Amino acid sequence: MEPLYIVKIGGRVIEDSEAMAPFLEQFAELPGKKILIHGGGRSATTLAEQLGVQVRMVEGRRITDAAMLRVVTMVYGGQVNKTLVSRLQACGCNALGLTGADAGIILAHRREVKEIDYGFVGDIDEVRSEPLISFLSRDLTPVLAPLTHDGQGNMLNTNADTIAATVAIALASHYEVRLVYCFEKPGVLEDVKDDRSVIPELPRDRYRKLQHNGQIARGMIPKLDTGYQALEKGVAFVYITHAADLQALLAGEQPHTGTRLTV
Amino acid sequence: MEPLYIVKIGGRVIEDSEAMAPFLEQFAELPGKKILIHGGGRSATTLAEQLGVQVRMVEGRRITDAAMLRVVTMVYGGQVNKTLVSRLQACGCNALGLTGADAGIILAHRREVKEIDYGFVGDIDEVRSEPLISFLSRDLTPVLAPLTHDGQGNMLNTNADTIAATVAIALASHYEVRLVYCFEKPGVLEDVKDDRSVIPELPRDRYRKLQHNGQIARGMIPKLDTGYQALEKGVAFVYITHAADLQALLAGEQPHTGTRLTV
Repeated sequence: MEPLYIVKIGGRVIEDSEAMAPFLEQFAELPGKKILIHGGGRSATTLAEQLGVQVRMVEGRRITDAAMLRVVTMVYGGQVNKTLVSRLQACGCNALGLTGADAGIILAHRREVKEIDYGFVGDIDEVRSEPLISFLSRDLTPVLAPLTHDGQGNMLNTNADTIAATVAIALASHYEVRLVYCFEKPGVLEDVKDDRSVIPELPRDRYRKLQHNGQIARGMIPKLDTGYQALEKGVAFVYITHAADLQALLAGEQPHTGTRLTV
Repeated sequence: MEPLYIVKIGGRVIEDSEAMAPFLEQFAELPGKKILIHGGGRSATTLAEQLGVQVRMVEGRRITDAAMLRVVTMVYGGQVNKTLVSRLQACGCNALGLTGADAGIILAHRREVKEIDYGFVGDIDEVRSEPLISFLSRDLTPVLAPLTHDGQGNMLNTNADTIAATVAIALASHYEVRLVYCFEKPGVLEDVKDDRSVIPELPRDRYRKLQHNGQIARGMIPKLDTGYQALEKGVAFVYITHAADLQALLAGEQPHTGTRLTV
């Protein structure tokens, strides 16, 4: 099968225009078909604060009321997505910015209210792979914002790591999917305080032990959990690496930074 | 040739969620291929004021400094575009939100500084019709925000009436293009204070006379000037009508509201 790179970019890199430049150049140079999925970083929080919209997080998840939904739609769907698209176009990459509502690619439902009402947060029901395959076949590079829709006229806020893994799984029967989570750390660290302690290969059993011992930083858990799910469901490779090391890792250069997940 | 409706929606309708509902239903029900182009209405001004970004207009054109470019990218590319896309999806219309940067469809350059520096305002160099034709052939309905890009990594702010006419002209050799400008008035009025004074058919000579006599509202001039250009360059029909009357006009019902331009 033909390879497809699905690269998720998140964390502080998103807000750092200088750090983005080498990442976008490396991404644009990746050969063949590729998809970029972005988070929103802290920019939504910054705008919410400027507008006097209350920011509430529960276990790292954003509570999204109507005012916050407007903020994330503007920041993720507008500012961040169009900045990435226009900069990729300047790098010669024919980027096409999308949310889950565009071409109906990601249908979700509002998360059920149990102990917490997350508001306009979407849990994914379905990724429609056919429009994505059609865009890829025309050498377009989809750039996905972390937004979905409910089919009833509402946008929903959905975690970017989850979108990356779910899209990777949906396309795994069509391509040899290589899923790469990029952020501001060089990979999964044995010691969270030591950037040189990257674990090159992390089998799930070992991850469970590290997690049990409290050695995994909280922000890594969604990437790792969704990454192992992706591997289980047919995704060929899952890597976690620094945004500046994308190309070295993919070229298989030694010594590479970054962590490869294995099951 | 196959018909293609290119509908531009602007004015106060954009900010009025209730007025949008019948418009979007009618648009979704238009048979065959279609493109929606939207303005931003006053919502960009509202957000700019909330953020303390200075709003400056010269002859109805917005001066777009870096802070205002961020505002219009968020409002036009995010809030307005994604609201329209998700609501059209709910009406069964497979909408695909785009700016001029997406798939590189509209390349522009920053307007030359003469007496006034408009800032990040883009004058269009080229509409790439091929990606639009490809989307239309797959029954996708492009929804265009009034934003272009310069190919160097910058988004630019571009008038929506101009985008509508320029896209219509670019597609006129591929389709029988029917360009419709929708807003909150029933058409071009003989007496700007009397909504019943709609001019059903307006030849360009008569427009020139009305304009010369000061009988044309200032906001109408870009629609009319770009509309006549479109007719000259191969667009089949150009109408100006109320957003609520889209379907009646297109169905050719009598008496229709709205103004048809003729050369």
